[in-house]
Amino acid sequence: MRSLPHPARESLTLAPVLHALGDPVRLELVRRASGSPGSTCAVLADGLDVPMSTLTNHWRILREAGVITMTVDGRHRRIQVRRDDLDERFPGLLDPILRLAADE
Amino acid sequence: MRSLPHPARESLTLAPVLHALGDPVRLELVRRASGSPGSTCAVLADGLDVPMSTLTNHWRILREAGVITMTVDGRHRRIQVRRDDLDERFPGLLDPILRLAADE
Repeated sequence: MRSLPHPARESLTLAPVLHALGDPVRLELVRRASGSPGSTCAVLADGLDVPMSTLTNHWRILREAGVITMTVDGRHRRIQVRRDDLDERFPGLLDPILRLAADE
Repeated sequence: MRSLPHPARESLTLAPVLHALGDPVRLELVRRASGSPGSTCAVLADGLDVPMSTLTNHWRILREAGVITMTVDGRHRRIQVRRDDLDERFPGLLDPILRLAADE
C-alpha cells in the first residue's frame, strides 16, 4: 500500500477545508467515509449519480484540503477522514458539520 | 432602505453555507461583519486587496447562501450576518467557524 501526497497537519487552513466540505457530493462522501474508515472510493460513492471523472476530482479536492487521506491498495483506493488532524487544527469544527450533514 | 432578495431561513442548506465561508476573503468579510453589525460593504472590505467586482461577487455568494443580509441605504450597502437564522438551521456551526477564523 502506498499513500498519495497529503498536506501536513500544521499546514492545514480553514477556508480550503470549508471549501472542500462545501459541496453536497463531497459532504456526503465525507459523511460516509467518517462512518466507514478505510472503505474504498467505489464503496463510498455507491449510488451517487456522479461521473467517475467528477468523483476523482472530488477526492482530490478533499485530499489536497487535508480532509481525507487516500491510500492505494492494489486496484483499490482507500479513504480515511483525517479526524485527529482536523480536530487538532480546528477544534469543534468537524463534529457539528458531520452531525448537520446527517440531519439533512 | 430596501433589502435585496434573500433565501428564507427554512430553505438554507449546509453545503452552500460552507461553500460561501470556504474562501479566505469571504471568511474574513463575515468575521468582520459579525463583529460590526450593520457596517457598510466599504468599511468591511477596508484594506483587503480585492477588486470591487470580486467583492461584489463575494457579497452575492454570501447573500444567496443565506449567510448575510444586504440592505440598500442610499448609496451604501449594509451587511448583517444572519446569526439567528444560521444558529437555528445549523446549531453549533457558526461559532466555531468564526472562532477558528479569528485564530488564523
